Amino acid sequence: MTQPASNPETIRVRAGFELHFELSRPTPMLFVVEPTERPGQRILAARKRIFPDLPMSETSSYTDINGNTVWRLQAPAGRLEVSHDLLIEVSAQKDAALGHLPKTPIEALPAHTLHYLLPSRYVDSDLLAGEAWTLFGHVQGGWAQAQAVCDHLQTRLMYGAGSTSATSAREAYQSGYAVCRDFAHAGVAFCRALNLPARYVCGYLPDIAVPPDFRPMDFHAWFEVWLGGAWRTFDARHNFPRVGRVLIGTGRDASDVAFNTVFGGFEMPRMKVWADQTGLSELPPMSDGFPVTPTAEGLALSAAWGDRA
Amino acid sequence: MTQPASNPETIRVRAGFELHFELSRPTPMLFVVEPTERPGQRILAARKRIFPDLPMSETSSYTDINGNTVWRLQAPAGRLEVSHDLLIEVSAQKDAALGHLPKTPIEALPAHTLHYLLPSRYVDSDLLAGEAWTLFGHVQGGWAQAQAVCDHLQTRLMYGAGSTSATSAREAYQSGYAVCRDFAHAGVAFCRALNLPARYVCGYLPDIAVPPDFRPMDFHAWFEVWLGGAWRTFDARHNFPRVGRVLIGTGRDASDVAFNTVFGGFEMPRMKVWADQTGLSELPPMSDGFPVTPTAEGLALSAAWGDRA
Amino acid sequence: MTQPASNPETIRVRAGFELHFELSRPTPMLFVVEPTERPGQRILAARKRIFPDLPMSETSSYTDINGNTVWRLQAPAGRLEVSHDLLIEVSAQKDAALGHLPKTPIEALPAHTLHYLLPSRYVDSDLLAGEAWTLFGHVQGGWAQAQAVCDHLQTRLMYGAGSTSATSAREAYQSGYAVCRDFAHAGVAFCRALNLPARYVCGYLPDIAVPPDFRPMDFHAWFEVWLGGAWRTFDARHNFPRVGRVLIGTGRDASDVAFNTVFGGFEMPRMKVWADQTGLSELPPMSDGFPVTPTAEGLALSAAWGDRA
Amino acid sequence: MTQPASNPETIRVRAGFELHFELSRPTPMLFVVEPTERPGQRILAARKRIFPDLPMSETSSYTDINGNTVWRLQAPAGRLEVSHDLLIEVSAQKDAALGHLPKTPIEALPAHTLHYLLPSRYVDSDLLAGEAWTLFGHVQGGWAQAQAVCDHLQTRLMYGAGSTSATSAREAYQSGYAVCRDFAHAGVAFCRALNLPARYVCGYLPDIAVPPDFRPMDFHAWFEVWLGGAWRTFDARHNFPRVGRVLIGTGRDASDVAFNTVFGGFEMPRMKVWADQTGLSELPPMSDGFPVTPTAEGLALSAAWGDRA
Repeated sequence: MTQPASNPETIRVRAGFELHFELSRPTPMLFVVEPTERPGQRILAARKRIFPDLPMSETSSYTDINGNTVWRLQAPAGRLEVSHDLLIEVSAQKDAALGHLPKTPIEALPAHTLHYLLPSRYVDSDLLAGEAWTLFGHVQGGWAQAQAVCDHLQTRLMYGAGSTSATSAREAYQSGYAVCRDFAHAGVAFCRALNLPARYVCGYLPDIAVPPDFRPMDFHAWFEVWLGGAWRTFDARHNFPRVGRVLIGTGRDASDVAFNTVFGGFEMPRMKVWADQTGLSELPPMSDGFPVTPTAEGLALSAAWGDRA
Repeated sequence: MTQPASNPETIRVRAGFELHFELSRPTPMLFVVEPTERPGQRILAARKRIFPDLPMSETSSYTDINGNTVWRLQAPAGRLEVSHDLLIEVSAQKDAALGHLPKTPIEALPAHTLHYLLPSRYVDSDLLAGEAWTLFGHVQGGWAQAQAVCDHLQTRLMYGAGSTSATSAREAYQSGYAVCRDFAHAGVAFCRALNLPARYVCGYLPDIAVPPDFRPMDFHAWFEVWLGGAWRTFDARHNFPRVGRVLIGTGRDASDVAFNTVFGGFEMPRMKVWADQTGLSELPPMSDGFPVTPTAEGLALSAAWGDRA
Repeated sequence: MTQPASNPETIRVRAGFELHFELSRPTPMLFVVEPTERPGQRILAARKRIFPDLPMSETSSYTDINGNTVWRLQAPAGRLEVSHDLLIEVSAQKDAALGHLPKTPIEALPAHTLHYLLPSRYVDSDLLAGEAWTLFGHVQGGWAQAQAVCDHLQTRLMYGAGSTSATSAREAYQSGYAVCRDFAHAGVAFCRALNLPARYVCGYLPDIAVPPDFRPMDFHAWFEVWLGGAWRTFDARHNFPRVGRVLIGTGRDASDVAFNTVFGGFEMPRMKVWADQTGLSELPPMSDGFPVTPTAEGLALSAAWGDRA
Repeated sequence: MTQPASNPETIRVRAGFELHFELSRPTPMLFVVEPTERPGQRILAARKRIFPDLPMSETSSYTDINGNTVWRLQAPAGRLEVSHDLLIEVSAQKDAALGHLPKTPIEALPAHTLHYLLPSRYVDSDLLAGEAWTLFGHVQGGWAQAQAVCDHLQTRLMYGAGSTSATSAREAYQSGYAVCRDFAHAGVAFCRALNLPARYVCGYLPDIAVPPDFRPMDFHAWFEVWLGGAWRTFDARHNFPRVGRVLIGTGRDASDVAFNTVFGGFEMPRMKVWADQTGLSELPPMSDGFPVTPTAEGLALSAAWGDRA
């Protein structure tokens, strides 16, 4: 089933998750976890499993105000298992670096980007406006300004826990510690303060052409800035052009694209996330189980990128 | 991999298609073929293949004005193969028969249903208004009126080719011959003429709990009428409650939901469609090839329905 | 209250209508008559009157699938009067003539334009495809092709009644007689057949810088073609760059933008439409009544355009 | 021009604003100030004026992600005057008090209401969840719970400045001082924390059937809670059923519906807002100027309500 990609312009990524919940009572849940077809990513195969199998009336799916696909379900008390396994074709190009892109004047921004200039729950850009202009106001150019924000956050923030689900961009920034969610919030906040429309992105990021990371994989968060007539990728956490991103959803901040929202108490005894380059042309049978990232195949493919870069 | 469905309220259907095209020049194409999550249908697994593998810039996907997912691609000259294979969970209930549902007065219809009262390209309901009221004006009740339309079309129209892609509801009706597309158009036309919002539906219809049909399977068309606050299924072609429908798309008429729209000349040396009940819990490996409907498993499961009905 | 326009780049138009209906029973009605803010038109003042004054529950307004504002009301039996009076600022530029605009290849069209390539109720473009390519297939350029369609229709069709509300583009074209609705349908049909996205437009067209027309004014219909990344105005009826258009709505054809749709029998003892250039900076008091177009002021302003052109 | 309302079920309100800005440079501006047709409010007449008259390219209007109409303009340096004057027909009913409405279980909420359960910039409901359940968790019923929130805020918060445009619900709540914006934020925050979908509303509120308030009128803010299948009005500031509300826009919080957003520095030497019951059947000529609320007519009509109540 493994075969060389027929198209040198693209690579294939296997990504997905397996979550187990323990619920003490029937519980409404939302999941923003489904990557959809987008420029730069094609869903070749997808497999979704919810156990126990719920009656038709207890599950649905809808498109939210931000255009994301949301799974909605009413879980019974007890054990709930949700998994998703995907084979996705994405561009073999690294994140673009378009340093020449100018800042779009506010009056020339498309209407649909304007609300990404406003503050939101975890992006208290109004409170960072002074600092933003002091630090970055002198930087010429739109891309350059967003990049300067990322560069600054790399220096200023140390990767590490410390934040909670209630931490805002400013709070994380002031604490000096950040996880990917906080890096993204801070990046978005400074950009909005600088009148660059910016939105929060969640998705999968496989380790390709970078040293392998053996810590358990998780969903990743980065952000996008509207420049040159399109949303452009920035990742203050890594601050390095990457290949293989699989975009799940976008929103004002993490509150819009939490991978799950549980209306009630719960325990999560198992959370497994995977995202890895692969030569597979179809998903393996379920009896093979779910992979642990990085896989041997992923490591080999990642290493081989050294020759391409 | 085959296991009894854990949920007696649902069944699983494997459905899909394989199309081969011969194109003499680069050709823009649209496909409305992707069933999505909806009340009553869950996509458990999906596999999509386009050969040759096109550059990222040559394929995309969008949601059209009717809410359908459209695949768009720019095919190169030569052979193009497109296939889709799905495992879908649908309700084990037959099409509802809700004879008591009254006709919603026009003034009480939701705004989003109103344009389904207007004529459209193949639904020349304005030209059938007189006949509609003569034949069905005396029927009391909304469901009863739509059902009387279906009953009449069953008697009046003989299943058989004769129409072309340009045939309107009235033309098919007058000819006396109809394929599923024409049955649906005529049903929609009479309903609209009677002020019942009606829309055309395309999808898959497996043979479950009915005598097997050994002719090559095709996509199916039926229609929906807004009654009792929801879209309700009617199928003038079969005019008999069925189980296992997989809805792909809805629109004003066949022009909105043609399974493919090819902007240029083409030949289609191969067209295979399948839709069959299955006990599978995942899609078989691609090396097993695509099924021919009805499969032996589908026949057995269909026959077993005799005991349930 | 009359003052020179302060902005030489714009002019002001007073437009509106007064309709009286006689209804023998309570009747649902829809009106697509409300011009809204758009590029090139600003609503300075608007006044709407429905008599008798209906309870809140009997009127509403919604945005339809095409983005048009629709008034919806449940009229009681008896006399119903509906009027609308507007002061609108529009560009002082004549319809653009951009003969250099190329035809956008289908694969480069934005997704939202694609369904304007499909046939619709009164635009049976599929049946005119052969004639379209014979007549216009050799014309190079997108604008040039759409203009060639208009030039041909000017020659081929004589202005005059003959069509009904059920007449399609092809039927009108073959009859040789057309009103503005038919000119627009035929223009749209030939363009769609040529793979130019085209949509039907209804609105007001004052007589400015043209010889006055003393016949009773009516709503006008024209069409738009997607060229050079925007919808461009074509008017096969006049086939001459005009100034002062006030756009009310757009759709696939006249069925989408009928200025009124009455679900039941009715008489219309009075229908008055006006659209005229004006120097007014506000609407006159209602006690002055509604104008008859062309007004003396409109005639004078129209004549003065001779000097500008 | 003054005449008794012909419909005892409705009243007429004249509302509007006049704003003068002094801008030191060309400045992009957004205004969310336009009431549109909605259940319960009809726009009979509207007059809009922007001075100086800007070129067509410098103004536009769009519908934002929340469904609000937004005016957008690129103002030149210098003086900018913006005014809007409206005659609106609204229900003569006071805000409904539907104490029997139960809380809709989360699993039964329509999808479009779910994001009104999430925190937003000024509605830090996640931080008030503990207090919300302590204070109101025991209250049975959805309406009752929302009303208990309003009653509590009336007691707990004193009307008065103290907040800024950056003050969140929790901050205002803890300060003990609130203006209408803060009352609304706090009400929304507690409701969301209690799993009641809630949204912020801005609009006009005339003084009808209440003692006259001779302080300068301003825009007003209140909130809505989804109960019994519809958005229901709550006003923690007044906490008393009112008549005559004119709804302008809704959103997650004040950041979504700021009446103006100015991208740059400005002075506002004049801000006048009016909203008053009236017997007028059309707007007076502009030469009469704009009214100061309460007008003598408004006071008389308000007083007359004593007899109705």
